[in-house]
Amino acid sequence: MPDGRLRAPLAPGSTIGILGSGQLGRMLAMAAARLGLKTHIYCEHSGPAFDVATHTSKAGFEDKAALSAFAKVVDAVTYEFENVPLRTAGHLAALVPVRPGAKALEVAQDRLAEKTFLTGLGIPVAPFRPAASDAEVRQALAQIGAAAILKTRRFGYDGKGQVGLAPGDDVAAAWAAINANPAVLEQRLAFVAELSALVVRAADGTLAFYDCPVNVHKNGILHRSSVPAALPAEDLAHARQIGAAIADALDYVGVLAVEMFYLGPDAAAAERLIVNEIAPRVHNSGHWTIDACSVSQFENHIRAVANWPLGSTERHSAAEMTNLLGTAALEWQTLAREPGLCLHLYGKREAREGRKMGHVTRLASKASWML
Amino acid sequence: MPDGRLRAPLAPGSTIGILGSGQLGRMLAMAAARLGLKTHIYCEHSGPAFDVATHTSKAGFEDKAALSAFAKVVDAVTYEFENVPLRTAGHLAALVPVRPGAKALEVAQDRLAEKTFLTGLGIPVAPFRPAASDAEVRQALAQIGAAAILKTRRFGYDGKGQVGLAPGDDVAAAWAAINANPAVLEQRLAFVAELSALVVRAADGTLAFYDCPVNVHKNGILHRSSVPAALPAEDLAHARQIGAAIADALDYVGVLAVEMFYLGPDAAAAERLIVNEIAPRVHNSGHWTIDACSVSQFENHIRAVANWPLGSTERHSAAEMTNLLGTAALEWQTLAREPGLCLHLYGKREAREGRKMGHVTRLASKASWML
Repeated sequence: MPDGRLRAPLAPGSTIGILGSGQLGRMLAMAAARLGLKTHIYCEHSGPAFDVATHTSKAGFEDKAALSAFAKVVDAVTYEFENVPLRTAGHLAALVPVRPGAKALEVAQDRLAEKTFLTGLGIPVAPFRPAASDAEVRQALAQIGAAAILKTRRFGYDGKGQVGLAPGDDVAAAWAAINANPAVLEQRLAFVAELSALVVRAADGTLAFYDCPVNVHKNGILHRSSVPAALPAEDLAHARQIGAAIADALDYVGVLAVEMFYLGPDAAAAERLIVNEIAPRVHNSGHWTIDACSVSQFENHIRAVANWPLGSTERHSAAEMTNLLGTAALEWQTLAREPGLCLHLYGKREAREGRKMGHVTRLASKASWML
Repeated sequence: MPDGRLRAPLAPGSTIGILGSGQLGRMLAMAAARLGLKTHIYCEHSGPAFDVATHTSKAGFEDKAALSAFAKVVDAVTYEFENVPLRTAGHLAALVPVRPGAKALEVAQDRLAEKTFLTGLGIPVAPFRPAASDAEVRQALAQIGAAAILKTRRFGYDGKGQVGLAPGDDVAAAWAAINANPAVLEQRLAFVAELSALVVRAADGTLAFYDCPVNVHKNGILHRSSVPAALPAEDLAHARQIGAAIADALDYVGVLAVEMFYLGPDAAAAERLIVNEIAPRVHNSGHWTIDACSVSQFENHIRAVANWPLGSTERHSAAEMTNLLGTAALEWQTLAREPGLCLHLYGKREAREGRKMGHVTRLASKASWML
């Protein structure tokens, strides 16, 4: 299937290849298993996903022989993170369907490409300037003329590769702090809330949407996601439309998360939602769907990848997901005792600071607002 | 730990050994993974559980060397079916905690031992007589003097090893039909409904109860389980009490299912519920707990086995679970499209008649009655 398309749903018993061995790969593998699908994790190092997969390959993303062997024994490939090298995805896509496709990877791997792509779709982003040297950062800061954030174009996540910068600050120090990597300077926005659109798009273009969670970050890392969001219905509908426009433009297959800032009801309707970034994969802010929906984001991603009909994204409960970072996971005995709490641990050995060790979901009756 | 007790909860990262590689072992392994526990499946043949386990051993239950090697690399052992040989459980229990214990196996493996045990606890069972020859069957039928069922004492499940028998019937043929195996003749009861008590008992004796589902069998195999049950609250409370009495008497650890006949409100209160049989394990009639509860029967079984605090057994939705037997599973594409349906496939290749290939759970708002 060199065109990257599956013509028919993959029958139960087929094998889904997953690039990456972290907790997202683990939860994808568990969702695939629910549907009677086997999984094959491919990663250069073992990790949480290895423990629950049917098969595993420990090999590098540049190892073409290993990639070809992997492609031969799987029926479709997906990935748990957006930094899969384009060459890797391209090599595999010549042999087996790879979903979401290369275009989504290309756009999401580079903040400049991403912002340019979004702007081209007429989707608001924070004012930004590319900067490839400290002189360009200085110039960009003068043009933006307000508090800003300097972010590397590539390989930033969970607040890494970022530094705050305001007019008058020491630009050289900021430039050094991001290791002189090509960057984007974007204006820091005063937002009322952060939210994400969680869209799933089937191979035939069918779209489905989970309720948009409100997200709270701490130190640049997601701390909590809650549904339902206490935002006006029209703004939530608009967030879904933005997600849909991006998914359609990328001819996307699978779950797509779009992180946004909500500037509040005082802003003009079309400018209330500003896209922060795109994650072409299942997303931490959708973990609550495991416990609050009949079909989780992980299962719907697998369904899309396997060319299955999408499952319902409806929510049966209100939900609040909290990440267990680092030593917070050591409280598992206390958490395990809490009535109604859904505990998820990823099986990671070392509780390093800021490391995502697990999460908990607290459920309440459907209409509750829980913040 | 030769006394079969764990003193402290098994930390995440520990390994739960599971005897048996079927769908129950598979769902136990997936529940363990949610809690960050690794799994090791031990079975003489590969099966659905192998696909999701961290480690697997393919070896016989009589292979003492393989059992000893297995015991060395796991932190506790449980089983997915009651026909684990007592010698196997005993060999393992000398090396590692085995839960639920040998007593539960001993009682549940033999219908005569089970009925004698229940009668000893004052729990009503259908009138019965042991029968070790066709002459004894004839005598037992005369004593019961009503329509009856001849059941082998051992290795019966899903309606296998059973034959109906009424006064005047050809006893020799019935005796031949069960291969002249030691048997129990029990009176056939006219019941209004079948239900099961789903009890979970922690190592410290703490008890928790899932709502009792009403069960519908077809051809001796479970077809459907629904909660909430439209039975009087006092009878449902009585069903839970029966489950608790059995679990306590067996010093049980884990999930215990007790299948019962409900004779209806016209019978005397103490005689409305008649125990049919005990399953010392997670049970098909509790599969709805995966989708309708924060903590499923599988997770609570693992929690008990790992000496964790029990999780809440509360239900957030009404639920109706239907088994997918044989070719019914071939309808997966239609089922996958049904809004709100939770689809579970076990990854079995061959859809033989009557084989449990998967199940579906339909959810509705909590208070609905769905039959």
